[in-house]
Amino acid sequence: MSELRKDPVLGRWVIISTERGRRPSDFLVEERRPASGFCPLCEGNEDKTPREVLAFRGNGTPPNTPGWSLRVVPNKFPALRIEGDLNREGDGVYDKMSGVGAHEVVIETPLHHETLTTLPLKAVENVLRAYRERIVDLRRDRRFQYVLVFKNHGPAAGASLEHSHSQIIALPIVPKRVREEIEGAKNYFNYKDRCVFCDIISQELDQGKRIISENKTFVVIAPFASNFPFETWVLPKTHHPNFGYMEPFPGEEAAQILRDTLQRMDHVLNDPPYNYIIHNSPFPDVDREYFHWHLEILPKLTKMAGFEWGTDFFINPTPPEEAATYLREAK
Amino acid sequence: MSELRKDPVLGRWVIISTERGRRPSDFLVEERRPASGFCPLCEGNEDKTPREVLAFRGNGTPPNTPGWSLRVVPNKFPALRIEGDLNREGDGVYDKMSGVGAHEVVIETPLHHETLTTLPLKAVENVLRAYRERIVDLRRDRRFQYVLVFKNHGPAAGASLEHSHSQIIALPIVPKRVREEIEGAKNYFNYKDRCVFCDIISQELDQGKRIISENKTFVVIAPFASNFPFETWVLPKTHHPNFGYMEPFPGEEAAQILRDTLQRMDHVLNDPPYNYIIHNSPFPDVDREYFHWHLEILPKLTKMAGFEWGTDFFINPTPPEEAATYLREAK
Repeated sequence: MSELRKDPVLGRWVIISTERGRRPSDFLVEERRPASGFCPLCEGNEDKTPREVLAFRGNGTPPNTPGWSLRVVPNKFPALRIEGDLNREGDGVYDKMSGVGAHEVVIETPLHHETLTTLPLKAVENVLRAYRERIVDLRRDRRFQYVLVFKNHGPAAGASLEHSHSQIIALPIVPKRVREEIEGAKNYFNYKDRCVFCDIISQELDQGKRIISENKTFVVIAPFASNFPFETWVLPKTHHPNFGYMEPFPGEEAAQILRDTLQRMDHVLNDPPYNYIIHNSPFPDVDREYFHWHLEILPKLTKMAGFEWGTDFFINPTPPEEAATYLREAK
Repeated sequence: MSELRKDPVLGRWVIISTERGRRPSDFLVEERRPASGFCPLCEGNEDKTPREVLAFRGNGTPPNTPGWSLRVVPNKFPALRIEGDLNREGDGVYDKMSGVGAHEVVIETPLHHETLTTLPLKAVENVLRAYRERIVDLRRDRRFQYVLVFKNHGPAAGASLEHSHSQIIALPIVPKRVREEIEGAKNYFNYKDRCVFCDIISQELDQGKRIISENKTFVVIAPFASNFPFETWVLPKTHHPNFGYMEPFPGEEAAQILRDTLQRMDHVLNDPPYNYIIHNSPFPDVDREYFHWHLEILPKLTKMAGFEWGTDFFINPTPPEEAATYLREAK
């Protein structure tokens, strides 16, 4: 069972994953590992994954058999386990708790070589709808305070499988970065009586120089203080704190803007490795007026080094205004 | 000139480096760049770097000529420039200031293939003494609030040159991660009237299971909440807030423990890429009793992915107790 441990100085938690238990030789092997021919996420290999918790299927095919367009399954090598109690305990200056949580994989397509940029719009929309269904379902488990939805695309961005997929992790705590984002937004709201993201959107639409694209409901920007070259945020134009509870959900427009943005990146950066992350309010704050959900896309074009690790202060060699121009003019 | 921009939600700064001005094609080229045969850091190529700000030389050789054992030079492509005023200004919801700072390179040896694990002890001690001299000198510039000393070893850890070197960056602000570390240590001190690092050292020496090595003055541990597999901290056993102002400086013991620790890593992990960072008190807190300087060594064996970017919450597949056992038993 994995263990959550708290840094006694920074107050941030880490998952010590004894499940995975890597020895020194495992890291050496990884570098040389050839791409395997077998894919556990492909249609027909349903018995190679844990049993599905959600699937979109046509014509009444039974669970865990072919015939699906999207599946959500528990991660076979989870960072956190769904069973058990939290068991908080101390050990002198240290604090820990058991590694309880959920770790799921969203298999976005039955076909090995499709991606979010090549799938039909309806399939991309289904991916987003699956995220929503899982967030709402996981919230019912009272042990969880936060659900993170994210995608790793390409080995340099941490993807260990090539088949297009995203991940969902439910956590028994609100992680440090999310707490900071909520606190920052709350401070701004307390001072101005306005949502900081709404103000950002309004200023960006007004100035135009960091706008990449927009449709009726969403706007895509290169953020003013981008940490990474070609960092890109997709924001709903009107205020809503949580992706899972935006009603009615503008699924088609969300799918359109997401696919279009990833296509622009493909075009300008030649299929870059990237991570995307849905920034959402924690469960206790689902309805709060100070937070505004959005999706952040972080291309992995530079390496994090000693300066960034020591300071949480990034060096971005591409001004966001230039990145926005390239992405705006793509296609 | 580069620009410092502040994230309006998280309050963290980023350096937007217009000096470097990378376009999309630059990122594609980088991947394919072959190792160049020419090294600007080697002895005899002194005219290929900016003029030295510090050098250790025998037999009266003049500056910027061969005959040195260590040189410190300004970075030829600095993230921040030494000239100019801070010029803080706002733009609607955003804040920025000019990219004033210092960015220096410590060339640790005149020989291309030496490293901190192969150099004589005296040469490693000189590297540490050079860090100290530069910290003390940069503190005289009243625009600077913090000096970060760090090393990137290996391309996967962000090193762009093979020749053994480290870097020093002086900043006009205290970066977020450092502020958090100081705040965490201060909170603990206010509550307990003791330094949290002193308490950690005492508990670790008592329990023994995460101790890697020690000498008279220093102890090396695998920290309880390690974010990375084989993360390793070197701490002075007695309290001192700032590496630059520890008097008398136990140079020989510091060099011995640092070289020994890096040799253990080489042995167990086969010359892994790593970053090391001196965690130091900011200038306004140089004498404060709540902070305890230490050096963190972070091997780069895993990739940061969407989960970590979204949460600042890491998944570490190697329990620190196991890492400590491997490193303790090495050699």
